[in-house]
Amino acid sequence: MTESSGFSRFSDLARPFLRDELERAVSSTADFGASGLMDIITYQLGWSGDLAGPKAEGKQIRPLLVLLAAEACGGDWKKALPAAAAVELVHNFSLIHDDIEDRGEQRRGRPTVWKVWGEAQAINAGDAMFSLASLALSRLEETLGESTALRAVNLFHSMALRLTQGQYLDIKFEDQDQVEMEHYWQMVGGKTAALLAFSLEAGALCAGLDQEVRVKYRDFGHYLGLSFQVQDDILGIWGNEELIGKSSTGDLVVHKKTLPVLYGLDQKKAFYQAWHAGPITAEAALEMAKILESEGALAYAQKTADRMTDLALSSLEEANPLGQAGETLRELTLILLDRKS
Amino acid sequence: MTESSGFSRFSDLARPFLRDELERAVSSTADFGASGLMDIITYQLGWSGDLAGPKAEGKQIRPLLVLLAAEACGGDWKKALPAAAAVELVHNFSLIHDDIEDRGEQRRGRPTVWKVWGEAQAINAGDAMFSLASLALSRLEETLGESTALRAVNLFHSMALRLTQGQYLDIKFEDQDQVEMEHYWQMVGGKTAALLAFSLEAGALCAGLDQEVRVKYRDFGHYLGLSFQVQDDILGIWGNEELIGKSSTGDLVVHKKTLPVLYGLDQKKAFYQAWHAGPITAEAALEMAKILESEGALAYAQKTADRMTDLALSSLEEANPLGQAGETLRELTLILLDRKS
Repeated sequence: MTESSGFSRFSDLARPFLRDELERAVSSTADFGASGLMDIITYQLGWSGDLAGPKAEGKQIRPLLVLLAAEACGGDWKKALPAAAAVELVHNFSLIHDDIEDRGEQRRGRPTVWKVWGEAQAINAGDAMFSLASLALSRLEETLGESTALRAVNLFHSMALRLTQGQYLDIKFEDQDQVEMEHYWQMVGGKTAALLAFSLEAGALCAGLDQEVRVKYRDFGHYLGLSFQVQDDILGIWGNEELIGKSSTGDLVVHKKTLPVLYGLDQKKAFYQAWHAGPITAEAALEMAKILESEGALAYAQKTADRMTDLALSSLEEANPLGQAGETLRELTLILLDRKS
Repeated sequence: MTESSGFSRFSDLARPFLRDELERAVSSTADFGASGLMDIITYQLGWSGDLAGPKAEGKQIRPLLVLLAAEACGGDWKKALPAAAAVELVHNFSLIHDDIEDRGEQRRGRPTVWKVWGEAQAINAGDAMFSLASLALSRLEETLGESTALRAVNLFHSMALRLTQGQYLDIKFEDQDQVEMEHYWQMVGGKTAALLAFSLEAGALCAGLDQEVRVKYRDFGHYLGLSFQVQDDILGIWGNEELIGKSSTGDLVVHKKTLPVLYGLDQKKAFYQAWHAGPITAEAALEMAKILESEGALAYAQKTADRMTDLALSSLEEANPLGQAGETLRELTLILLDRKS
């Protein structure tokens, strides 16, 4: 992303406001003798602890998508700030819990919450962030009135339920010999796409759009999420380690059932044999990645990602986003979905 | 509780309606290829799995308090069913996560969720129940309109945040040599009292009462929770094993810093010495319970519980609950807070 891109400019403009909104939401945890709980939460948000700063905060793409969608729908992005804060908080809630569930030890260049505070405090801090997200969202009543706030609350908790449905499948896949493509898409639809779909739809809702157009934004976010996940699956096997900042082929070493793997297993050829031959070393993974590519899995995954990107872009066009914010949404989609360039 | 008590009669009347409301809320998890997630949730609710049935369901006192409060405020308890369902679901969410955090292996006579499905699925199923609770609550819009629903949603998430603040302190106490009485009360105020306070206040809100009277119901629930916890602390050291269905003196064996223990440590006498002498066996715990009693901790805890019960009852009187439901709230308070009889 170049410095002069529309997204960078919007990000520079909006992030201080987002930070204020988040601080307002998080400050309520300081009450009640539980200031240590606030320390955990501000650590997860990248505001405190060793290496606090922009890298630890993450790119905050999801909350910025809420604001861009509100603006592209002719609304005032500042009135959507409570929804953007809720999205950032619920995203971090899910990261805290995912890291425990997946035994992830590093996140944004730092030890994960459970590595620092232990599992019990990490589970509980995640729960606290979920409540903070809900409370942040409720402040839409102040900016946009009761009806919009209540619609947003309902959408939000339906989304959160879908997150857990996707996560349920993802955890279950670990113990399954075989995973159907259909179930892969259900998993990704919940785990990755539901929050992006909500982010875009919430922006449209905050601009006062009716359901017919809101659904277009939701679809845009949904397909953006699907495409993004398939790209991530590709990078997890064939990514450039230096560019993505984590081990490529890592997904093979942990036997993760990503889209290219499911495709490869379906072929029942050399990759299938190697996959079922037992533990996969980092060295073997390099060789298996080549076999998997030769069996057509990389081409298949790239074609699939392109198809999802096309669906995302056509949903966005149908939504007819306005002005500079609309341009930025298009630009961002192309940037997000071609992370190698 | 005798069969003919007002609470039993109300419970028999209301529980089938509560069950319907809960089933309506939970059925949404069946979508989306994640029916296994619903299996975990219905197990936690006592509806499925080995030994499913009334014992596994629990007494459902909290949701019934919501309904009784609504009725005692002159409202229609059936319109408060969404709030009652939300209370039952959020209570079970917190039990799933608490059992992971405390390594609890048994709950209502059955293995806990994490023992059956593993920690990752248990964390996630708890998260799903939290979302289901929020979605259940939103149905208040249908029974009581937008404003009441939004007020309830805000109270609910403030309560959920307090739960996590109390739980944060409870986990932290494990690693502390010393715990101040003030922090003990903050912990109990969140962990035990916040949900009871919400249950009563939500009932009053559903009956359309204004904040002045709602606060009386909230105070009633708050002190009920504090008294209940102190009673539980007493039973955990001096309880009759057969009556309470779990090991008495168990709290001493795990070095749990309950109210009688904090009192005993403050005396800095024989109990203080024994507590700091290392691991406590079940046999030693029996002896230590006697020492603790002789140093005045049992009398202190009983006096404290009585004081909290008096505060609960005087808050209830100030709230001026009406009719049979009002009588039942008084009756239930006396029964709940004297569990030995």
